[in-house]
Amino acid sequence: MTTPDSLPRRRLLRAGALAGAGVGIGAGAGALGARALDERAAPEPEEVLHGQGVIPFHGPHQAGIETPAPAHATFLGLDLREETDRDGVLRLLRVLTADAARLTGGHAPLADTEPELAAVPARLTVTAGFGPGLLARAGRETPPWLAPLPAFPIDALDPAYCDGDLMLQVAADDPLALAHAVRMLLKGARSSMRLRWLQQGFRRAHGAVPSGTTMRNLFGQVDGTANPRPGTEPFARTVWIEDGPFAGGTSMVIRRIRMDVDGWDELDRSGREESLGRRLADGSPLTGTAEHDEPDFSATSAHGFPVIGEFTHVRRARGVDAADGGQSIFRRSYNYDLAPDPAAGGISESGQVFVSFQADPLAQFVPIQQRLAELDLMNEWTTPIGSAVFAIPPGAAQGEFLGQSVLE
Amino acid sequence: MTTPDSLPRRRLLRAGALAGAGVGIGAGAGALGARALDERAAPEPEEVLHGQGVIPFHGPHQAGIETPAPAHATFLGLDLREETDRDGVLRLLRVLTADAARLTGGHAPLADTEPELAAVPARLTVTAGFGPGLLARAGRETPPWLAPLPAFPIDALDPAYCDGDLMLQVAADDPLALAHAVRMLLKGARSSMRLRWLQQGFRRAHGAVPSGTTMRNLFGQVDGTANPRPGTEPFARTVWIEDGPFAGGTSMVIRRIRMDVDGWDELDRSGREESLGRRLADGSPLTGTAEHDEPDFSATSAHGFPVIGEFTHVRRARGVDAADGGQSIFRRSYNYDLAPDPAAGGISESGQVFVSFQADPLAQFVPIQQRLAELDLMNEWTTPIGSAVFAIPPGAAQGEFLGQSVLE
Repeated sequence: MTTPDSLPRRRLLRAGALAGAGVGIGAGAGALGARALDERAAPEPEEVLHGQGVIPFHGPHQAGIETPAPAHATFLGLDLREETDRDGVLRLLRVLTADAARLTGGHAPLADTEPELAAVPARLTVTAGFGPGLLARAGRETPPWLAPLPAFPIDALDPAYCDGDLMLQVAADDPLALAHAVRMLLKGARSSMRLRWLQQGFRRAHGAVPSGTTMRNLFGQVDGTANPRPGTEPFARTVWIEDGPFAGGTSMVIRRIRMDVDGWDELDRSGREESLGRRLADGSPLTGTAEHDEPDFSATSAHGFPVIGEFTHVRRARGVDAADGGQSIFRRSYNYDLAPDPAAGGISESGQVFVSFQADPLAQFVPIQQRLAELDLMNEWTTPIGSAVFAIPPGAAQGEFLGQSVLE
Repeated sequence: MTTPDSLPRRRLLRAGALAGAGVGIGAGAGALGARALDERAAPEPEEVLHGQGVIPFHGPHQAGIETPAPAHATFLGLDLREETDRDGVLRLLRVLTADAARLTGGHAPLADTEPELAAVPARLTVTAGFGPGLLARAGRETPPWLAPLPAFPIDALDPAYCDGDLMLQVAADDPLALAHAVRMLLKGARSSMRLRWLQQGFRRAHGAVPSGTTMRNLFGQVDGTANPRPGTEPFARTVWIEDGPFAGGTSMVIRRIRMDVDGWDELDRSGREESLGRRLADGSPLTGTAEHDEPDFSATSAHGFPVIGEFTHVRRARGVDAADGGQSIFRRSYNYDLAPDPAAGGISESGQVFVSFQADPLAQFVPIQQRLAELDLMNEWTTPIGSAVFAIPPGAAQGEFLGQSVLE
C-alpha cells in the first residue's frame, strides 16, 4: 500500500501545511515532545498526528485571537482574593505566564504531577484578559471602555456568568490537553484567586472539515461570515489597539447566549432563512449565491419587498441602513451543549459562548448589539444570560510576563 | 510543494488506512456527502479529512462496542412514558433505528431541519441498550442479570445518574456531529420517552495521538491496558452473548465515577504508582518495562515485600490471589470534566463515565467490582455516583430494527 520513500515526503508536505497555517512543529519540545515525534514514524506511518502542533506563545500579540480557532475552548472568570495585593497580582501573572508558556509548548509546568498529559499540546493557546478589578488592585488606570456593557432589553443576565477580575481563554484541539491545562492554570492561580465562572465550548474537530470553513452554530447556521480575515489589514484595524498601555492588545466581549433550539425547531426552513437573511445550506445571503457574496440590501422582490427583510439578523447586524453603520468586530465564538434538566421537559440546553475581539467595544461592539437588541428576528430564539468585557494586554516577549507593559 | 499526481495516491492511501481500521468512506453518502467529498479536493489539497468517516450501522453486532472509541460520547438514559404500550415501544425502536442508520451514514433523518449538521458523521455510532422496564413493557422476559448491581460499600449513588428503560450511547469524533445526532434522536424519542439522564465524555481527539494508544484518564493514568483486543477471540469470548434472545448482543455496565483530582494532586508520583501498581509514564506494571507486560504479582523487593502491593488497583482488579480470579471485561470509558461549583471552593469537577461490556455482568463485572470495593487504594480518590446495567441487543440487519430478535 505504501512505498517507503513516499512517506517522508508526505510528512514533510504536511509539516509545510501546518507551518503555513501558523503552526510550527514544537521544535524545542524536549524529551517528551521528541518521543511523541518518534511515535509518528512508528507503527502506522499513514497517520498524520496533530497533537504535537504548537502555537508560539511569545510575540507582539497574544496567541488565541488571530490563531485559527481550535476545536475546544474553556473560558475562566476569576476574582482576586481580598488579601491579594499589587505584588500578589504581579506574582500571579508571572506564574501564569511561565505555566502558559510551558504548557502551550508541550512541556509540563514545574508543579505538574501529571506531566504526561502536557505532552500533547494540540495547538493549545492561553489568552489572558484583565477586568477593572485587577487593574485597580495593581494601581493602574482603567480604560474608559473597560466596564460592564450597557443593559440591553433582551438581556436576562445571570451574575454567575458575568464580569470578573481576570479572564483566561484556554483552547486546544484535544479535549484532554485542554482539561489538563485548565487544571494546571487554576492550580497556579488558586492561592491568589477564586474561580468565578467557567464556560466550555466546542467547534468542529480538527481535520473533520476543511480548515478555514466558517463554523456552524447549533441552529445549523453558518456563523461568522462577516469576520475580517486574520492576517489582513482589516483584521488588524478591527482588532488591535494602536496606542496607550494596551497597544498591541485588544478588548474581549464574552457573552453567554442561550439558544432555544427546541423552539427554533418548530420553524420551517424558509422561516429560518427569512429571520437570518442567509441561506442555511451554505450561508449565502438571500441576494447571492456564495457565502462571501456581499448582501444586497437594496434588492427587492417582484412584489417590491426587500429580499433581505428589514428585521433580518444580517441587516440589523450590518447596520447599513443607519448613519452609524459599518462597525466591525472579530467573532471567535464556541458552541455549548449541556445536559438539559430532565424536570424541565426540554431536550436541549444549548447555546453559544459568544466571543468578539475589537479595539474599542464602545465604538464597535455596542452599536451593533444595540441595533440587534432593538430589533432582530433572531431575538425570538436567543437570550443573553452572561456578559463580560476584558482588556487583553499585548503579547509577552521572552522573559516578560503577560500584562507587564500595562502593569509595571 | 505538491505535485498534482501525488495527491490522488495519497488520498487513496489514507482511504486504505481508514478502511483497515474498520472505517469505510460513506460510499452512498448522497448529495451532501458527495459535496463534502468534493471539498476535500478543493483549496487545501494537503488536508486529510476524517469528518466523512462512516462506521457501518448494520451487522451482526451493534456498532460502538468493538469500534475503536471515538473522541466524544454522549450517553442517554430514557424512561418510557406511562402511556407508551408495547406497540409504542416497537414504533419507537423503528424510528430510532431508521434515524440512527441515516445519521451514522451521514444522511439527515427525515424530520431533520438542520440537514447540514448531519453531513459530517465523523465515525458516528449509535448503540442502544434495554433496561428491565422496556422489556417488561414489551412483554418480554428480563435476563436474570439485567437488574441494578448489588450495592457496594464505596457507592454514593445519585438516582439522577442511575437506571433507565432505554440507553443510547452516541459517539463521534466531531462534537458538533455528536450534538446534532443526540438532538435528532431525542426528538424522535420524545413523544414516547422522557429523558432521565445525559452524560457526556471525551477521550483524545481524532489524530492527536497514534490510533490504538490506550486512553489516559484525568489522573494521568493509562487506563484500559488489560482490555482484550477488539477483533480477537478473547474479545469475542468476553463480550458477546452466545445463546438466547440476546445472542450477538452483550451487557453494558455504565457507572459515573467522580475522581477527586484535587485530592489526588496532593499525592506524590511514587505514592500514585504504588496505589495503582503501574507506572504513570507509560502504564507499565511496576514489575515490567512496557505497558502490555504481564504484571508479576509474585515478585518481591529486596526487603521481601511484593513489588506490586496487596492493595494496588491492578492486583485487586485482576483478582489473581483469589480462586475466583480471571474474570474479563471490556472497558470503553470516557472522561468528564465539568465546571466546578465556585461556592464549593474546589478547582475540579472531574471523573469518568466508566463503561464496560461483558457477556454476563454477574459473572464478569460484579466479582471484580466486589474485590475493588473491598480493598483498593484508588478508592480513596474515586466515588461511584451513578450506576446502571443495560442489555444490548444484537445488531440489526438491513430492514430490521434494533432489538427485533428480542422483542418480536
